[in-house]
Amino acid sequence: MSLLSVGTVAFDTIITPTARAERVIGGAGSYSAWAASFFSTPVNLVSIVGDDFPASEINEMESRGIETEGIDRVLGKKSFFWEGEYLADFNSRETHKTELNVLADFDPQLPDFYKDSEYVLLANLTPSIQKSVIQQMNERPKLIVLDTMNFWMDVALDELKEVISMCDVLTINDEEARQLSGVHSLANAATKILQMGPKYLIIKKGEHGALLFANDGIFSCPAIPLQKITDPTGAGDCFAGGFLGYIASQGDTSFQTIKRAIVYGSVVASFCVEEFSLDRLKSLQRDEVEKRYEMLLGMMRI
Amino acid sequence: MSLLSVGTVAFDTIITPTARAERVIGGAGSYSAWAASFFSTPVNLVSIVGDDFPASEINEMESRGIETEGIDRVLGKKSFFWEGEYLADFNSRETHKTELNVLADFDPQLPDFYKDSEYVLLANLTPSIQKSVIQQMNERPKLIVLDTMNFWMDVALDELKEVISMCDVLTINDEEARQLSGVHSLANAATKILQMGPKYLIIKKGEHGALLFANDGIFSCPAIPLQKITDPTGAGDCFAGGFLGYIASQGDTSFQTIKRAIVYGSVVASFCVEEFSLDRLKSLQRDEVEKRYEMLLGMMRI
Repeated sequence: MSLLSVGTVAFDTIITPTARAERVIGGAGSYSAWAASFFSTPVNLVSIVGDDFPASEINEMESRGIETEGIDRVLGKKSFFWEGEYLADFNSRETHKTELNVLADFDPQLPDFYKDSEYVLLANLTPSIQKSVIQQMNERPKLIVLDTMNFWMDVALDELKEVISMCDVLTINDEEARQLSGVHSLANAATKILQMGPKYLIIKKGEHGALLFANDGIFSCPAIPLQKITDPTGAGDCFAGGFLGYIASQGDTSFQTIKRAIVYGSVVASFCVEEFSLDRLKSLQRDEVEKRYEMLLGMMRI
Repeated sequence: MSLLSVGTVAFDTIITPTARAERVIGGAGSYSAWAASFFSTPVNLVSIVGDDFPASEINEMESRGIETEGIDRVLGKKSFFWEGEYLADFNSRETHKTELNVLADFDPQLPDFYKDSEYVLLANLTPSIQKSVIQQMNERPKLIVLDTMNFWMDVALDELKEVISMCDVLTINDEEARQLSGVHSLANAATKILQMGPKYLIIKKGEHGALLFANDGIFSCPAIPLQKITDPTGAGDCFAGGFLGYIASQGDTSFQTIKRAIVYGSVVASFCVEEFSLDRLKSLQRDEVEKRYEMLLGMMRI
């Protein structure tokens, strides 16, 4: 089944308490497309880069079944760049630099063959761009997943609420759920957010796992207790990509499939944080994914 | 099956962002004994109070199957008192006052009929007192559960480590697990702590649930997303009491029973925080416990 993902393809400089990675490949589009491609291809990626972005990375995506015709390459301009530092214990991070570069003019025009994609992932990005992508689809996709963050709640709440009303699944963290709903109790926050349109709300809690709220019930997915965390960047994007990639591979959107997809999304995210950039995803084998999936199921078994 | 619990029976003044409760009944012994008594009686409670402690509370315990012969009542002295304030969102708390009163001289002598208790809960207390209780038992109990906190790691680490080496189950929170082991990864912290003696380590994570680490595997128990939180005081004690009460009711300590006991402990804790003091426990019915137990199982079902 075809899946479309829109998000940044970019460079990151990452500083952690113990290491530093300089101008490595990053961006929500990169992480989510790589994660989805473990389960379902083609992944029709929509993004924008400058002429500094390495062709080898684009080729590597192509060889994994990620379509890159929708990645606009702008000559004479630079790719989006973010530099951030994680503080002790990875519980918070500070942005040192954000250079929008090509992203300032991003107004994606979908290639025609993208417009029939059945599953759509709107990775974290300006809500107006997310909306534009939905509007270019030929038909209403089977499932639209929206990832966003507190920044858009601060600067573009009305546009964000409009996109939320158009999506089926919203993925945010617990603090964002509280901010968006204006209430502290996650149970009450979920009720309010589900009234905004989505059928499913997934609250990402990092090392504490993920919570799914739906009219069908609540599902709690644990996180694997990891021995090694190198860099949390991209974990949320990998979660969303793995989640929708699994759903696309099954071709159905039942509550059962949604729950399994959350476990698979958590698994890919758990690998992502073990190395900087896409490094761990690039060495990851499908049987490792299955092994950790079984481990997570075991942690829930009573 | 008989269960022994040792811990404070005391007064608390609790301040939250929205309310205040003045000199209400508290203490780890009170909460844990009440929680255990939902599942298994007699609960042989060991504690100390002053002559300011209401006889009606003692009578109410007795009527629930909590034995109070082991509660020393000291004439002319006051009960232990704690005043604390929860800050916004209940994520942290400050101690305003601690008056040890009778607790300064607490050197429990177990009534003879307590000494054959098969299940022992050492609620949060001075490690030397916890050790003294173990040493007074006629036979090695079937299961010893130890609850403690960072304070004892700061001021009595050697004594605490000795008691840890004597227990079967240790219950602490995630920051305490990191402090006790000296490592950040919970997976690695658990490995180190299990080498100190316990067969089971339970990491209590409040609104994020609980994690069980054992040689048999890892189990993750979610927390019920609550609509109402009034006062988190006593939640950890109720968890430990409900946990061991359920095990005592089953009379076995298999991995399966331990896992179910964690779910029951979480359920009793989830009710405890809905009201101040023992108020919610006093109105709680067993069928409400079973309903929420089924709800938690449902949250893990895939």
